[in-house]
Amino acid sequence: MEEPPGQTVVAESDGVIAGSAKMGPNRPGRGSHVATASFLVDPARQGQGTGRALGEYVLDWCRREGFTSIQFNAVVESNAPAVHLWQSLGFRIIGTVPESFDHPRHGLVGMHVMFRYL
Amino acid sequence: MEEPPGQTVVAESDGVIAGSAKMGPNRPGRGSHVATASFLVDPARQGQGTGRALGEYVLDWCRREGFTSIQFNAVVESNAPAVHLWQSLGFRIIGTVPESFDHPRHGLVGMHVMFRYL
Repeated sequence: MEEPPGQTVVAESDGVIAGSAKMGPNRPGRGSHVATASFLVDPARQGQGTGRALGEYVLDWCRREGFTSIQFNAVVESNAPAVHLWQSLGFRIIGTVPESFDHPRHGLVGMHVMFRYL
Repeated sequence: MEEPPGQTVVAESDGVIAGSAKMGPNRPGRGSHVATASFLVDPARQGQGTGRALGEYVLDWCRREGFTSIQFNAVVESNAPAVHLWQSLGFRIIGTVPESFDHPRHGLVGMHVMFRYL
């Protein structure tokens, strides 16, 4: 569970937890105006809008908390639905760290740093 | 102090600590083949090779420990000596997160993600 000033939330669907997100400052001190977040969605519930709902919640929360931007540090490049979801929510790819994730099926794939202003 | 499998080291000059570095995996699990490190140099001893000595030590240590690459997550872009040092040690800039560091003199400046294979 993310400690304050961050927080952890769950997405509920028919009384069942479909996913979760944690969010907070990406760095302490002089980098603490930039938020970050990470997400989990139940594999049985992929493609049903849980990630989008959590992402929209996170963006709202970050704005309310006064963050000026948000950064994802490690979006697996082979996870096209996630990359497209974040792009549709206004994120762009800052850069890709090559071969930084050892994917169980695809082998070594890159991870994107993604960013947007708030 | 960085916990194993990482470690923290100091650079000593004439019996005085001139700087320190900590190093270890950048991420757990499927990202743990990529190292990261961070550095501190005594401001009174800038420009005397302490950062370079620590950097070279870190690269050797990472190779010995079997990491396949190393990533710095947040190199302040206005810190030209640091950026040039890492470039001279084989790092390249993967991307720059804009306005992510609130510099006491320069205001909001970007931070580079830097990377090299080992």
